[in-house]
Amino acid sequence: MDRKNRSNCPISYALDLIGDKWSLLILRDIILRDKHFYKDFISSDEAIATNILSNRLKMLEYDGFISKTRDTIDRKRFIYNPTEKGLDLLPVLIATMRWSDKYSTEIKQRPPSIEMIRNDPIGFENRIRAKFSNTPTLLDRHH
Amino acid sequence: MDRKNRSNCPISYALDLIGDKWSLLILRDIILRDKHFYKDFISSDEAIATNILSNRLKMLEYDGFISKTRDTIDRKRFIYNPTEKGLDLLPVLIATMRWSDKYSTEIKQRPPSIEMIRNDPIGFENRIRAKFSNTPTLLDRHH
Repeated sequence: MDRKNRSNCPISYALDLIGDKWSLLILRDIILRDKHFYKDFISSDEAIATNILSNRLKMLEYDGFISKTRDTIDRKRFIYNPTEKGLDLLPVLIATMRWSDKYSTEIKQRPPSIEMIRNDPIGFENRIRAKFSNTPTLLDRHH
Repeated sequence: MDRKNRSNCPISYALDLIGDKWSLLILRDIILRDKHFYKDFISSDEAIATNILSNRLKMLEYDGFISKTRDTIDRKRFIYNPTEKGLDLLPVLIATMRWSDKYSTEIKQRPPSIEMIRNDPIGFENRIRAKFSNTPTLLDRHH
């Protein structure tokens, strides 16, 4: 799955990896919505197709954004978690939410987190990070 | 060019508009690299195909991220500028650059702006915004 970087530009670099309509939504599910299983991603409102989901999960794991470990309780399934590299996209997710909060005027419904993101985006980021740092094993495969 | 939002999620909302490998690079060129003409975008390192560029410029204008006005000096060409809505993606661009600065270890070259973005991202954002607010006509078509 080797890809060539289109240029030395840091924005281009990131888009080469996650510049599509789905990758950041899967990371959103894992990081912000406590979703950790394949069936959880399927159930999100955007109704991702299973072939796209499988492909994106593979890419995100290959590129080091998420880890995939066998569930010790139900060994037929896998648990997906963010790596440090994936969690470090939080500022991108938060900046995107703030932009949409301002411009998606035709959408009336806002996620419950938007209030905190409006008032204290740094605090929000820290709270999410703390959630994962409290369970350090979640991050043990970020190489 | 009407598109349906996949969900009420603010991240999904933004990706429906700019979730691809090219839109943010065109905005980067206009906002961060003082590129304002069709031929400028063609000459960027990523070598965008002309059909993709034409399509994305149309979409970005349609969705209100950029304005397109006839050049008063050379009336055969158009000047592209960010609207307020486009310029408000600066925090997303900056957050993306900071992430890549940390993780694109295989790329040695960094843009000159990265030093300031590392040390003072808010100052960097304000400097870019000031550049456009000094020429208010650049923003006069953001409705």
